[in-house]
Amino acid sequence: MPFTPPVRDIRFALDELAGLADVLKLPGFEEITPDLVDAILEENARFVAEVVGPLNDKAERQPPVCENGSVTTTPGYAQAFRQYAEGGWQGLQHPQRWGGQGLPHLVAAPAGENIQAASLAFSLCPMLTDGVIEALLTVGSEPQRKQFVPNLIGGKWTGTMNLTEPQAGSDLALISTRAVRQDDGSYRLTGQKIFITYGEHDLAENIIHLVLARTPDAPAGVKGISLFIVPKFLVDDAGNLGKRNDVWCASLEHKLGIHGSPTAVLLYGSGKGEVGEGAVGYLVGEQNRGLEYMFIMMNAARYSVGQQGIGVSERATQQALAYARERIQGRAVEGSAGPVSIAHHPDVQRMLLTMRALTDAARAVSYVAAAAHDKGTHHTDAEVRSRNRALYEYLVPVVKGFSTESAVEVASLGVQVHGGMGFIEETGAAQHYRDARILPIYEGTTAIQANDLVGRKTLRDGGATAYAIVAAMRDTLKAVEAEVARADEADRAGLRLLRDNLDQAIQAYEHAVGFILENASSNVRAVFAGSVPYLMLAGTVLGGWQMARAALACRRKLAARADADPFYRHKLATALFYGAHILPRALALSSAVRSSDVADACAAQADIA
Amino acid sequence: MPFTPPVRDIRFALDELAGLADVLKLPGFEEITPDLVDAILEENARFVAEVVGPLNDKAERQPPVCENGSVTTTPGYAQAFRQYAEGGWQGLQHPQRWGGQGLPHLVAAPAGENIQAASLAFSLCPMLTDGVIEALLTVGSEPQRKQFVPNLIGGKWTGTMNLTEPQAGSDLALISTRAVRQDDGSYRLTGQKIFITYGEHDLAENIIHLVLARTPDAPAGVKGISLFIVPKFLVDDAGNLGKRNDVWCASLEHKLGIHGSPTAVLLYGSGKGEVGEGAVGYLVGEQNRGLEYMFIMMNAARYSVGQQGIGVSERATQQALAYARERIQGRAVEGSAGPVSIAHHPDVQRMLLTMRALTDAARAVSYVAAAAHDKGTHHTDAEVRSRNRALYEYLVPVVKGFSTESAVEVASLGVQVHGGMGFIEETGAAQHYRDARILPIYEGTTAIQANDLVGRKTLRDGGATAYAIVAAMRDTLKAVEAEVARADEADRAGLRLLRDNLDQAIQAYEHAVGFILENASSNVRAVFAGSVPYLMLAGTVLGGWQMARAALACRRKLAARADADPFYRHKLATALFYGAHILPRALALSSAVRSSDVADACAAQADIA
Repeated sequence: MPFTPPVRDIRFALDELAGLADVLKLPGFEEITPDLVDAILEENARFVAEVVGPLNDKAERQPPVCENGSVTTTPGYAQAFRQYAEGGWQGLQHPQRWGGQGLPHLVAAPAGENIQAASLAFSLCPMLTDGVIEALLTVGSEPQRKQFVPNLIGGKWTGTMNLTEPQAGSDLALISTRAVRQDDGSYRLTGQKIFITYGEHDLAENIIHLVLARTPDAPAGVKGISLFIVPKFLVDDAGNLGKRNDVWCASLEHKLGIHGSPTAVLLYGSGKGEVGEGAVGYLVGEQNRGLEYMFIMMNAARYSVGQQGIGVSERATQQALAYARERIQGRAVEGSAGPVSIAHHPDVQRMLLTMRALTDAARAVSYVAAAAHDKGTHHTDAEVRSRNRALYEYLVPVVKGFSTESAVEVASLGVQVHGGMGFIEETGAAQHYRDARILPIYEGTTAIQANDLVGRKTLRDGGATAYAIVAAMRDTLKAVEAEVARADEADRAGLRLLRDNLDQAIQAYEHAVGFILENASSNVRAVFAGSVPYLMLAGTVLGGWQMARAALACRRKLAARADADPFYRHKLATALFYGAHILPRALALSSAVRSSDVADACAAQADIA
Repeated sequence: MPFTPPVRDIRFALDELAGLADVLKLPGFEEITPDLVDAILEENARFVAEVVGPLNDKAERQPPVCENGSVTTTPGYAQAFRQYAEGGWQGLQHPQRWGGQGLPHLVAAPAGENIQAASLAFSLCPMLTDGVIEALLTVGSEPQRKQFVPNLIGGKWTGTMNLTEPQAGSDLALISTRAVRQDDGSYRLTGQKIFITYGEHDLAENIIHLVLARTPDAPAGVKGISLFIVPKFLVDDAGNLGKRNDVWCASLEHKLGIHGSPTAVLLYGSGKGEVGEGAVGYLVGEQNRGLEYMFIMMNAARYSVGQQGIGVSERATQQALAYARERIQGRAVEGSAGPVSIAHHPDVQRMLLTMRALTDAARAVSYVAAAAHDKGTHHTDAEVRSRNRALYEYLVPVVKGFSTESAVEVASLGVQVHGGMGFIEETGAAQHYRDARILPIYEGTTAIQANDLVGRKTLRDGGATAYAIVAAMRDTLKAVEAEVARADEADRAGLRLLRDNLDQAIQAYEHAVGFILENASSNVRAVFAGSVPYLMLAGTVLGGWQMARAALACRRKLAARADADPFYRHKLATALFYGAHILPRALALSSAVRSSDVADACAAQADIA
């Protein structure tokens, strides 16, 4: 079914929760007026609905194929990508100096989210290209930037990230691709990379691979990995294409989902091509600092994958809701003259509201993160920058882990709402369930996000950022408390439950943070055995915090006008539902974190390893 | 990868939790000795591992095809079904008088579970045939039984259930297939049925369809539905095949999973075949009581689908564990000389133990239910029979709902353990994730199970069965309490946490039951808005109860022998992990049940219906 970008929900989260107005006041964004943001979001919605959305299920019938090293993508993809490039969508968040639009992340994020929602498989190519641009801008030399970045931003070329090898997935220390320096200062690469998203395709005239490899004299482990640019076609200084490089697609993977996205096995240095043996590559930055550089791409990509989770959730929710309103089946439990639409049944409503509440909460948290990114880079006050940077750093693994795990749950509920029809591929609900499953895996599994959240983001500053979040949440709690007193009977029960459950959830989160800080040195295994429950706890509670802020904002809007806009009623109901049905999960998650010493002891006895 | 039936885990649950010894003492089972049970389980394991297991992924490459109304199944299926029939597996639980083995359900259940684990798609044909046998034995006439049952039990023919029509899924009141009585007492059926599992195939020479249809004078709604036998080939009294009946496969569905199982659209009365127009059918039992009869099949099938959930969970767990032990990636968090298998990493252990604990718990609950079934039908004391029947009736929706929802979670974790490899279809983990998704849908969605659990199983007896379960759980809690005092340091923390969490969980369950009883008449929508959380709560707590009993049994076994069998250490650790990491979910679920009035009020405001 067609996808409609949820422009109004996005605007609500931008304005009321993430503070778009404040972000637009930051230096560097003076030219970005609210009207311009509106225009961008409207144009984005049109493009997404008309051009990208219709691609989504096409690849199910005609997936990309690889023949003799060349990949032909699904019909329609190439044209859509041209329109994407011409529309300037690749450049949204990139600097104007290099051809981009220089928009705040807070504006680029929803635009990207809609494209990802419309076709996850399609959106991966721009997303990885973003990462390559970001890495080259940060650590590439000036000539490298000039040579590659404008054409990447312009959508003439695309980019890829080449990390994984058969023996080296999450553990990049095991990478064995070799790079040998030549007399002219370039390198020759040999090796095999797998799981390379859009590693080969026909959407653009050139592909710029960023590749992790080892030089012959490099130390073992992660400290001996360097980063190289390997273009599919060599490029002269003026950007003209030259010889075909020695990097070849050996095959495409047969995957559970995102069928439209060609996942390539790439061979470096198989001796084909026009450059002799070995793929020609160019060192980026300094030798042996490749992993550090790659994390620049990874961090941007992790945030984007979190947005993908929100996108898939949004699309699955729209589809389930439309089906539920249409499908007539069964009488109302409270009695009805005849059969009603299944959207009337209490459990279908529970599922749909769970889907919507998780989507809203994940979106709100991710926009708050994007705003923190913008303030962390553009604010004039160094202390504000530093505080926001810490918040953003804390939120990235939460956005990535929570939004994507939620997406799996939401997509699964989407199938369930459809009943037997959900299991039939043509219905389309199953595709979201299949597509969503990669999200908690790629760009770092949920466990890797959780380890980052525990190790670098919670322990390193002694819990300072986590406790600052607790304090901010308690402020919101007080505001909810005050609102309970103001509420009439219709909203009071829901607000009171939200207050009670948020209070409990904040405590549960605080206790979990305390457990991690106390046990990190004495029982590191226990702390990491509880890291994923901690991440999910953080997502659940922070989501609840934002839903509480959403509830307050809606109450303000509704109080301000007698002719109350039903939009705010709906939003308020979704936020209160989150408080009633989702927030209590915090209790179970916190309990799991705090009993991870027992869980780890069990694992030692349970014949696992 | 090959599947190994978990014979020892099954024996443990049978002997220590479900009380196999007591069941074998029931009248009618005198000839079933423990040695015979051993022999059956061993032979079952051999057959499953050698014959059924290898079928599992074959259909991914060569799914069944329908041409001109005939379905050719995946190569190997037909031969395996012949071996299944010759081995007498179809008759395990059916009466000896009709060619079955007359085994207790408690023995038939694990045998079925293993076949379902080995190949879910294959096992559906026997499962539905079981349902047809059960229905004919219960409500068929003596001539109908003689005509059909021995060949069904012998595996010469197979059976199907024909309920669903395009407009009539969960709501069978909307069925419109017509059955018109003929002068000879037979009927002619016309209409279309969809989602008919093994509705057409080449595994057996005949297919006996049980079909819900309406006679011309039938009242509207569910009270006007009758049940008919429609054989693919007509059958004379001696069981010889006659003319091809007018029931035809129009197409097979393109499904998310269980690709080996042909899901047919069946046309009744399209005028092909050798009988003129309309499919020849025979009324089963009385007119207009078809739905009631169909529930006989449904109840048996619901229990079996619960077993499928356990089977898929077991298989996914075995596969993830094998991969995790083999895959070398990353150093140990506590430090290691080099990279270790991922089975050493705390979060991978958490995932694997979650998978195993959910599987063990669901299996234990389902065997307890099977034992209750056997006692409910075979015990000499009418009061014991009645009590056990009530327990079994309560447990069927829990077994169906909880085991299958858990299976989706377990299969999803199985993909996650595999990382990127899990997303590649050839790995096999994704198949479980796809296959599992149908389980909470067919034979009544989780919501329908939950409504049954609330309406018929909890409210109808005023909570008597639920509170009897609470009392029994409290007895176990006392025993755990006593065991904490006896435990040495190694087990004490785990047992204490199990006690605390079980105590909390029992209370949470009791409060939820109380909420349902109190609100059923005043706010029926709220009660049903919390019905699925209530079902999941019941499964979680009852699973915890059985895991507590398992822990106690393991402690007894370990105390009895100095040369402690490591099997009991592993089982104990799994049970304690359940107590630490899974049981706390009861808090969140109970909270959701008890706030369903707010949730329902939100739904009314949220623009869903």
